[in-house]
Amino acid sequence: MDKQQAENSRRKFLTASGQAMAGIALASTVIGSGVREAEAYGYKTGFEYVKLDPAKVAQTTYENYFKRWCASSVVAGFLEYLQKNPGGQWKDLPIDAMRWAHGGLAGWGALCGTLTGAGTVIGLATNDTDIAEAMVNDLAFYYAYTELPSFQPKKVLKSKLSDMTIAGTPVCHISVGRWMRAADETFLSDARAERCARLAANIAQETAIMLNAWKEGKFKAKHKVLYNVIANGITSQHNCRDCHGNNVPAAETYISLDK
Amino acid sequence: MDKQQAENSRRKFLTASGQAMAGIALASTVIGSGVREAEAYGYKTGFEYVKLDPAKVAQTTYENYFKRWCASSVVAGFLEYLQKNPGGQWKDLPIDAMRWAHGGLAGWGALCGTLTGAGTVIGLATNDTDIAEAMVNDLAFYYAYTELPSFQPKKVLKSKLSDMTIAGTPVCHISVGRWMRAADETFLSDARAERCARLAANIAQETAIMLNAWKEGKFKAKHKVLYNVIANGITSQHNCRDCHGNNVPAAETYISLDK
Repeated sequence: MDKQQAENSRRKFLTASGQAMAGIALASTVIGSGVREAEAYGYKTGFEYVKLDPAKVAQTTYENYFKRWCASSVVAGFLEYLQKNPGGQWKDLPIDAMRWAHGGLAGWGALCGTLTGAGTVIGLATNDTDIAEAMVNDLAFYYAYTELPSFQPKKVLKSKLSDMTIAGTPVCHISVGRWMRAADETFLSDARAERCARLAANIAQETAIMLNAWKEGKFKAKHKVLYNVIANGITSQHNCRDCHGNNVPAAETYISLDK
Repeated sequence: MDKQQAENSRRKFLTASGQAMAGIALASTVIGSGVREAEAYGYKTGFEYVKLDPAKVAQTTYENYFKRWCASSVVAGFLEYLQKNPGGQWKDLPIDAMRWAHGGLAGWGALCGTLTGAGTVIGLATNDTDIAEAMVNDLAFYYAYTELPSFQPKKVLKSKLSDMTIAGTPVCHISVGRWMRAADETFLSDARAERCARLAANIAQETAIMLNAWKEGKFKAKHKVLYNVIANGITSQHNCRDCHGNNVPAAETYISLDK
């Protein structure tokens, strides 16, 4: 996209997603006084995005999962196509450079690696911090508040699957744990691996849909960003009592799943 | 690094860090049966790392924070030097491509963005999934179990600072929250911004120290990886009761910090 196209896209976005932008502007102005402030800004990227078939991206992500796990399988879902067309700088990006993000950082259970993988593609393909952040924010809402995984592979590679759950959060440990409880499956089961593979496919597909819309100048943020931190006094989701309440199960109920 | 150097480095690493490797091998074998398994493997990268001065990387990270926030400021700490020498593919990487990861993904409070930024550099610079994962794992241990921030800037850009805390986790929301309670500061205070800027500098510095050691063929993993999931039955830290216990404060005590 040339400079004029980029500016047109930016203006369309600014017009279309006033709600999200209000949040971003707020965050930019309240962070502190003095020095340089963290306002939204455009940036140059040579990683040119071309519209992809979301269903193909999803299927390729799914097929990569059992080798690459969550983060790099999403990257692979895009790079298998982008490295061929348009090629360019995508060809220099190692698909496995983000594999470390699996399991919420090598098993620490923090941010689900599918979102790290998707965010990497989004950040490279887009050219403005407000666009990238609005997009990963919408993706986190999709991840957290949609019954997943709904992706149906062409051929099942690991296990049949029937349970879908609402994670309520992009945090790996909680997302996986809630699914394990619903499905009565252990972490090391084929079904759990299948669930994360299909979830990765869903995230990759949703990302491709958003990037395609952006490429057409039609991306609109669906949600306000969370970091206009008025409600909680700290950067966070707005569901405090999921953790700071009496509804968090005792550790033993989880440990018992390790049959 | 040429192929022979890479293989020498790999063998040294495999010899030196048998403990970490045992964990990785375990994870590779127990994940499931059939299809392709997620074993560790080498990968090609053209992002050549050259040894950097960790103190300079830290200072540059700190100075970038107030524009770029946590994730991209760590990336900037490295790229300000690597884009000049050795240049090459580092010049094509947009420093702000990972800015979306701030605040644990645009404010969702999951994985601290400093680790996403550092992991991106590590994943691009190294060439083997076991090396990158051992390195981010050690980095997460450093982040979680060191009193931070200890970094002292050449010139204070935002606020004086005296409180250091042990996060106990790489999760942004908890890490920031524990520091806010100890320091009796709000999220929007200059002191909190200064804390995260200095923390980013610490993480960048530790990353540079590890990458320098790896470049010399001397990197040794200090900790076993967490995803040999024997204890908890799920990919996670091993401190279940930090959340699944009676010691999680009620939401109201946090909300009251939003003065």
